[in-house]
Amino acid sequence: MTDKDYMQRALNLARQAEGRTSPNPIVGAVIVKDGKVIGEGYHHHAGGAHAEVYALKEAGNEARGATVYVTLEPCSHYGKTPPCANTLIKAGIKRVVIAMEDPNPQVAGSGIRLLNQAGIETEVGILEDEARRANEIFIKYITTNKPFVILKNAMTLDGKVATKTGDSKWISGTESRQLVHQLRDKVDGILVGIGTVLADNPRLTTRLPQGGQDPTRIVLDSRLRISLNADIINQESDAKTIIATLKSSSQEKKKMLIEKGVEIIEAGAGNNIDLNLLLDSLAEREITSLLVEGGSQVSSSFLEEGLVDKLYYFIAPKIIGGSDAISVVCGEGVCQISEGIKVVNKEVTLVGEDILVVGYPEYMTN
Amino acid sequence: MTDKDYMQRALNLARQAEGRTSPNPIVGAVIVKDGKVIGEGYHHHAGGAHAEVYALKEAGNEARGATVYVTLEPCSHYGKTPPCANTLIKAGIKRVVIAMEDPNPQVAGSGIRLLNQAGIETEVGILEDEARRANEIFIKYITTNKPFVILKNAMTLDGKVATKTGDSKWISGTESRQLVHQLRDKVDGILVGIGTVLADNPRLTTRLPQGGQDPTRIVLDSRLRISLNADIINQESDAKTIIATLKSSSQEKKKMLIEKGVEIIEAGAGNNIDLNLLLDSLAEREITSLLVEGGSQVSSSFLEEGLVDKLYYFIAPKIIGGSDAISVVCGEGVCQISEGIKVVNKEVTLVGEDILVVGYPEYMTN
Repeated sequence: MTDKDYMQRALNLARQAEGRTSPNPIVGAVIVKDGKVIGEGYHHHAGGAHAEVYALKEAGNEARGATVYVTLEPCSHYGKTPPCANTLIKAGIKRVVIAMEDPNPQVAGSGIRLLNQAGIETEVGILEDEARRANEIFIKYITTNKPFVILKNAMTLDGKVATKTGDSKWISGTESRQLVHQLRDKVDGILVGIGTVLADNPRLTTRLPQGGQDPTRIVLDSRLRISLNADIINQESDAKTIIATLKSSSQEKKKMLIEKGVEIIEAGAGNNIDLNLLLDSLAEREITSLLVEGGSQVSSSFLEEGLVDKLYYFIAPKIIGGSDAISVVCGEGVCQISEGIKVVNKEVTLVGEDILVVGYPEYMTN
Repeated sequence: MTDKDYMQRALNLARQAEGRTSPNPIVGAVIVKDGKVIGEGYHHHAGGAHAEVYALKEAGNEARGATVYVTLEPCSHYGKTPPCANTLIKAGIKRVVIAMEDPNPQVAGSGIRLLNQAGIETEVGILEDEARRANEIFIKYITTNKPFVILKNAMTLDGKVATKTGDSKWISGTESRQLVHQLRDKVDGILVGIGTVLADNPRLTTRLPQGGQDPTRIVLDSRLRISLNADIINQESDAKTIIATLKSSSQEKKKMLIEKGVEIIEAGAGNNIDLNLLLDSLAEREITSLLVEGGSQVSSSFLEEGLVDKLYYFIAPKIIGGSDAISVVCGEGVCQISEGIKVVNKEVTLVGEDILVVGYPEYMTN
């Protein structure tokens, strides 16, 4: 077993709490002594104990002289729990292997410094890429104070999201739709445009066999066209619904919606909702990740403003054709192929009959 | 080694002549005696010896009492070569294992019958699915007297074949474009619309490091808009160029084109080229396979008329957007998702940075 093997184990532990630690990162820790794992743990939820604490508890007095593998730099500040760096020092740990520094530039390195000052050997950067990927949401949020935006689209092989008559049920297969519910279960917020609400009257809840957690629902509705009877604001759910609208939209309707328990965010004084402003407002509400299940228009807006961090494209093996069918991305578009958005670090998998492309947009910088 | 193993070997041999035996099928044969391969061969090109003949020649007198594995029912008719069934009988073969019957319903089974009448044991259907796939072109041609139509499209992840300004260079990567040349090398004909000729002035030749064979070029040009200076009719190539047009298009232009060595096919007296008529004409010219490298319009026409047998969709990991960009399939389109064309038996592979989806369209029958 090498350092990488133990770190891999720590990363696997961390991932058990994926989508459950917001606004915190996911963290896993493994304690090894004489080639034997003597303690392990992970951060379960915000406010709960840190990974190192679980692992140290399991290791007990054996921890003295041991090596700790932790997927994120141990914290050095007093928050809801005392700093882990101090706890590791007190436990007599000899060596700490860290996948990545704290991404918050203002605190990065201070946990490591504390450990070094106490004479603990540290090594940083083992499986760093994987650790960064595992905490991509936290990293985006803590470094930019904006949510990590995941755009999900389900399209036909010929790039359509609806036929010329607007039919879109169902493009993707049951396995893909199940996977979308798994995504919903792990994000803080889910966003659609009013067009989708009017056309499909969706609930936007997480419906998995084992239950799951509902994300906060956000509807872009600049002119408040939503019906007071829409399912999205008349259902049982632990999560609330936010309607993002313009300052200028009907005050009366806003009041009626608020009375129904909806939160109103006024994002923009112009004719269009200011998506940047909206993302700032959502971040203030500790929405660190946002799943955009756009129709074509919403998807296009987020992409054209360069706001998408990660893409999930479900491609169904169907061809529907039609000059008047609706393409997955419309908007203004680019003039030259070379000006397009590149999708990098992509992974292609089969989900039932569908092809799933997951990747990261790389925007052209002019 | 089982029957399947030997048949697999015969299929692998057959495939060495892929794209070289038109209008014949590809066929491979392996002769086995006492668990040892004593002869093997494949049909190299139309007019040449059949697979069984090569294999028997290698086996010599040892063939007496041996088992022959052959990917297609041995022929029973006198054509350019004597019937293989007779040759096998004369050689004293004991058992013949056959992947599939002759697809031509008028001769299917007659070779097997000859063998059985001579007391030779036969077994049919070993690796039949794979054998049928390997000869999909021949099967289509011999049973319908129409070419097997392969539609190739290169599109962005958002389903576009060109930006709003018409830019399309390059959507797919170099590895994908290389693979297209491998496809060209194996088909009898390649077809584009006049739009592509006017926009890109393509040569439509096969350009592979090791050379390759040029398919017959077919341009759909209903009103004969092609320039007499177009590269496609002014280049060195062993293959000819056919222009499919309407009866009503300029007789003078037709004459000028014919003088340049172009063949004219009049396909349709109406306003649009009759693709069914054209395919019949191409089949008469022993074009058994046709690669359609359509623009959006040509692709849509072939799909909407249900004429495509196999699809190659290259999906580049790029997003270009644009309501006015050109979608990979346009045309009339369907109203309901459920009315779309299903793509079945698909294979998804990565070709360089691109995703290649190969599959077979399954048309709705109303």
